[in-house]
Amino acid sequence: MPAQALLPGYLAERFASWKALRFEPDRAWYARLAEGGQHPRAMLLSCCDSRVDAVGMFGAEPGDLFVVRNVANLVPPYRPDHQHHGTSAAIEYAVTVLKVAHVVVMGHSHCGGVAACHDMCAGLAPELDKPGSFVGRWMDILRPAYEAVADRLPEDREERLRAFERHAVLASVRNLAQFPFVADAVARGVLTLHGAWIDIGAGELHGLDLNSETWRPVV
Amino acid sequence: MPAQALLPGYLAERFASWKALRFEPDRAWYARLAEGGQHPRAMLLSCCDSRVDAVGMFGAEPGDLFVVRNVANLVPPYRPDHQHHGTSAAIEYAVTVLKVAHVVVMGHSHCGGVAACHDMCAGLAPELDKPGSFVGRWMDILRPAYEAVADRLPEDREERLRAFERHAVLASVRNLAQFPFVADAVARGVLTLHGAWIDIGAGELHGLDLNSETWRPVV
Amino acid sequence: MPAQALLPGYLAERFASWKALRFEPDRAWYARLAEGGQHPRAMLLSCCDSRVDAVGMFGAEPGDLFVVRNVANLVPPYRPDHQHHGTSAAIEYAVTVLKVAHVVVMGHSHCGGVAACHDMCAGLAPELDKPGSFVGRWMDILRPAYEAVADRLPEDREERLRAFERHAVLASVRNLAQFPFVADAVARGVLTLHGAWIDIGAGELHGLDLNSETWRPVV
Amino acid sequence: MPAQALLPGYLAERFASWKALRFEPDRAWYARLAEGGQHPRAMLLSCCDSRVDAVGMFGAEPGDLFVVRNVANLVPPYRPDHQHHGTSAAIEYAVTVLKVAHVVVMGHSHCGGVAACHDMCAGLAPELDKPGSFVGRWMDILRPAYEAVADRLPEDREERLRAFERHAVLASVRNLAQFPFVADAVARGVLTLHGAWIDIGAGELHGLDLNSETWRPVV
Repeated sequence: MPAQALLPGYLAERFASWKALRFEPDRAWYARLAEGGQHPRAMLLSCCDSRVDAVGMFGAEPGDLFVVRNVANLVPPYRPDHQHHGTSAAIEYAVTVLKVAHVVVMGHSHCGGVAACHDMCAGLAPELDKPGSFVGRWMDILRPAYEAVADRLPEDREERLRAFERHAVLASVRNLAQFPFVADAVARGVLTLHGAWIDIGAGELHGLDLNSETWRPVV
Repeated sequence: MPAQALLPGYLAERFASWKALRFEPDRAWYARLAEGGQHPRAMLLSCCDSRVDAVGMFGAEPGDLFVVRNVANLVPPYRPDHQHHGTSAAIEYAVTVLKVAHVVVMGHSHCGGVAACHDMCAGLAPELDKPGSFVGRWMDILRPAYEAVADRLPEDREERLRAFERHAVLASVRNLAQFPFVADAVARGVLTLHGAWIDIGAGELHGLDLNSETWRPVV
Repeated sequence: MPAQALLPGYLAERFASWKALRFEPDRAWYARLAEGGQHPRAMLLSCCDSRVDAVGMFGAEPGDLFVVRNVANLVPPYRPDHQHHGTSAAIEYAVTVLKVAHVVVMGHSHCGGVAACHDMCAGLAPELDKPGSFVGRWMDILRPAYEAVADRLPEDREERLRAFERHAVLASVRNLAQFPFVADAVARGVLTLHGAWIDIGAGELHGLDLNSETWRPVV
Repeated sequence: MPAQALLPGYLAERFASWKALRFEPDRAWYARLAEGGQHPRAMLLSCCDSRVDAVGMFGAEPGDLFVVRNVANLVPPYRPDHQHHGTSAAIEYAVTVLKVAHVVVMGHSHCGGVAACHDMCAGLAPELDKPGSFVGRWMDILRPAYEAVADRLPEDREERLRAFERHAVLASVRNLAQFPFVADAVARGVLTLHGAWIDIGAGELHGLDLNSETWRPVV
């Protein structure tokens, strides 16, 4: 491993600013959080995309939101097959241990992962079909959803991708609802599931009506 | 699915505040980000814990940081086995498509996932050994690291967990370095790898010296 | 007791609106709050005045703020004399049982209680001196503070009352700091004390610098 | 007093949001409220519990409700003994100076103060019997009510506490009716007294019929 700084300089400098301006005034609260453990009100499942900081968008304070971020904010199907399932583990921990009251799957416009899935399924990205492609194999989770709606998606590429991004959120919420411990908590009225999608350029947030499976602006 | 609101009321209200006070003044920038795509400078691999908002701690603006958040900020070993590997897919996308300059694995104190792994490996949490436990199977990734250092960890439980949390970051950085496309980028000098660990109660950030594999305060 | 409605009609109607529009969307969260207990981050000590809704001003959600409201937001001196001390009991519960990280004494302009105390101490309100006056006896808590600063208060009545309102907050924070369990938590760095005062007409919030005992605008 | 911020950072930020989004549009109204004084229609006596925001539940606007919040929403017996009685002072001020038309004692489920009183009276919480316990001495107000009904309360602990919470509201309304200026205003038909109790998990509001001393759902 070549010699290098402990951290990139700009990150170390910004951390120092955060500590002086944000941490110190709330030091007592952080001490309490460390001692008392976390009691987050909701779990948020969002994308890794650098343009989507859901914690900031929802004005979350330390301790408020338990957050998973993976490529294209996917929830895989329920598969207790003894493999490593990071997202399923996070869902299990949030619902059965932390007992969050809400799980929100948060999608967004211009999602590179959803576009990659679309192109792979449409035969436009053969490199993603290669067995060794981690992105391809991860986006396989969304393949059934693509095949189910491909005929009904708009022709125009941008409209088509926006529509598929929203459909991907619906597919993830459907998978989420299949986890037995999720279904149980929902049935007991102590957990609600939500789908959201934000147009990152326009700042418009849309919510998924789970009964009609249609989208409406939230604000 | 029972009838419910599109989003929990408080999230909708806080989003409205964000949009009015944060988004509108920067609307042009968000429009550019949507059109121009993301060009993040670094990838951050952090925990789902609600008390650790690394984006805020590093003062990141929209577009700055590509962020993965999973339970206990783990990087699994390189396994191109055609399974769904969400974290490996994110690493592949960040390094080969986005070409980030840095990957930072960010651990933290009082980590519930690391404690669960410790107790499972020490035989104190049989429920996590059950095949159907997603948390248990996810934390299996860290089992070899536990077995390698268990004898050398401090006796005191809290000190022991703090030490294991830091060792878990080292194990993840070692796994990260084994991905061929990561090793190649590092060798070409266009990517650096970093390990960090924050004491969430004291706000102290420590960095991993990859040559000596020892920890030092960053600021 | 004369016959009457269970509740004034307008309160029953407004509650019905709250239940339909605020409670139902967050029903799962309220169920969790009931089961899991409260973990408020801060205690707020505010006035009964109908014009000062500190919970709303600080955008607090259910579970966020433990709130005491008494006339003129007073903290009495520490007196473990076996009498009924409602405010002292709330402070004891918040700090020793709930372990809040912050206590904020929140004063406000145009406070009727502070004006009553001023006039009583200045000999302008003999009815409040009568032994049977609960308001007079409650405001006696502030009498030492009045006597300490009366000479230094501005001549103009409105300016004089605004200054005395802020001095009353300082006196309450000083009393608060004398409670042994408060002093202990502050010394251990897990509790911070704060004084604030809002001009209810201008919406300006001022904070008390406890080192210099001077006031500065918060935002 | 150790150095610290004027206010916890998150409270300052949320206040800024409130000012921009709530105060500014109503600035004229706040200016009028400051100049014209308060004319609240009702007094509400509620608990400090962070999960019970009665102002929000009753959709109250600035100026609507004069609010006392103490541990377990207690009204002490009428005792003009020259001591500091914060709650009695608030009642005196609301009824004789502000001339509110209604006083509502608002209880709630899962009340920590009522549970503490129950356990103390049942001999299960010796630490609350200590003379120096402010919570214990405050909850002594409710001891006669416990002794009067203990034999008639349900066996099951949760049912027992729910029943005692409602009985505590009745006891407070009875104390309230004993204040001479309250009794006089009620007799003149310019004041009504009310008891309410909310199940915070189910959002169900119950009202006390003062003639039959029984409870019925409000909505």
